[in-house]
Amino acid sequence: MSEKPLILVTNDDGVNAPGINALIDFVKDLGDVVVVAPEKGQSGMGHAITIGDIVRLFEVTRPDGIKTYACSGTPVDCVKLAICHVLHRKPDLLVSGINHGANSSINVIYSGTMSAAVEGAMEGLPSIGFSHLSYDYGQDFSGLKESVQSICKSALQKKFPLKTCLNVNFPNIDAQHIKGIKVCRQAEAHWADSFEKRLDPMGKEYFWLTGNFEGRDKGT
Amino acid sequence: MSEKPLILVTNDDGVNAPGINALIDFVKDLGDVVVVAPEKGQSGMGHAITIGDIVRLFEVTRPDGIKTYACSGTPVDCVKLAICHVLHRKPDLLVSGINHGANSSINVIYSGTMSAAVEGAMEGLPSIGFSHLSYDYGQDFSGLKESVQSICKSALQKKFPLKTCLNVNFPNIDAQHIKGIKVCRQAEAHWADSFEKRLDPMGKEYFWLTGNFEGRDKGT
Repeated sequence: MSEKPLILVTNDDGVNAPGINALIDFVKDLGDVVVVAPEKGQSGMGHAITIGDIVRLFEVTRPDGIKTYACSGTPVDCVKLAICHVLHRKPDLLVSGINHGANSSINVIYSGTMSAAVEGAMEGLPSIGFSHLSYDYGQDFSGLKESVQSICKSALQKKFPLKTCLNVNFPNIDAQHIKGIKVCRQAEAHWADSFEKRLDPMGKEYFWLTGNFEGRDKGT
Repeated sequence: MSEKPLILVTNDDGVNAPGINALIDFVKDLGDVVVVAPEKGQSGMGHAITIGDIVRLFEVTRPDGIKTYACSGTPVDCVKLAICHVLHRKPDLLVSGINHGANSSINVIYSGTMSAAVEGAMEGLPSIGFSHLSYDYGQDFSGLKESVQSICKSALQKKFPLKTCLNVNFPNIDAQHIKGIKVCRQAEAHWADSFEKRLDPMGKEYFWLTGNFEGRDKGT
């Protein structure tokens, strides 16, 4: 039996998103990695779970041989199904991401990436959500390896309190210009929502949720 | 222009659920009521919002003439769309429910009913989620009128702090045996999750999320 730590990887952008590939690549040196992630994008799913409907699980073949499953459900479903059915035990570390887009402040409540990490924390696991401020799927994450590994190593050494998860946001700059890691509280902010009304080809109206993120934090 | 308070009603069991009908009936004496609720059941949707897909809104005719809309999205979408598009202003009170089933303790994070109320609170509205411990759609809610109205009146008088929402759970007993209202903190509890694996008619496996609710609160 392996003595390596067992690391569960998930996300909300879906099992094929570049961000999760980067994260898998970064953590595979740190332990035995198993991936259970949504088969399709689940951004904005928050802490949703699938009740009143079925959940499917499909094994996915990856070139690096990492055991990977796509789940039809939400990011939180992925965490629950991973623990209950795939792993049959709690992993030593849960990492979620790397999300394509920031998850700072109030975004945490809407974020599938962070909700997966929160679910992990509720289960008593060291859990970390990683996000990058760029929404660009072509973003080069390679320079983040050292930072991700260093944070994961700390978590594996249980250097943070039980039922706490970390929310790590990488700035949208060249990784070589990152000066270090700053630990901070969650900032106060607000979404000034709006809906863009459009007409479909049949002339019926539909809406897109849009809005402006308004920072309200005085930084004190 | 009406001086009556504007009351937004939503839920997660869907616009046709008996629970929301009871709630509309109880609050319609207290102000001008507008209903924006999911067209279908959205239990367990937590704080999910619809991004990356469109949202639809359909006017629904009710026998009592209360302005009512069914929304294709989540309970939180309903709140956002109600404020931004239907009402064009923040209501004076948001009520969500009456949910068919308890929303105590950890259930709040998974609950669409409570997430709608939390979204209202984030918008600075007096917001209340109502739930009944019975899952029975035939449940008689009529005896709860006085309690619901009394709590809503307090909220309209802004007797509770900003950015706070109330989570009201009614016991599954005859309403006449309810002795009063007890204000308490959220209890500690945990879901011991499990998944029931089944085979579909094509022999492919699928899962139902199940589990046991484990109270862990010492009540101190």
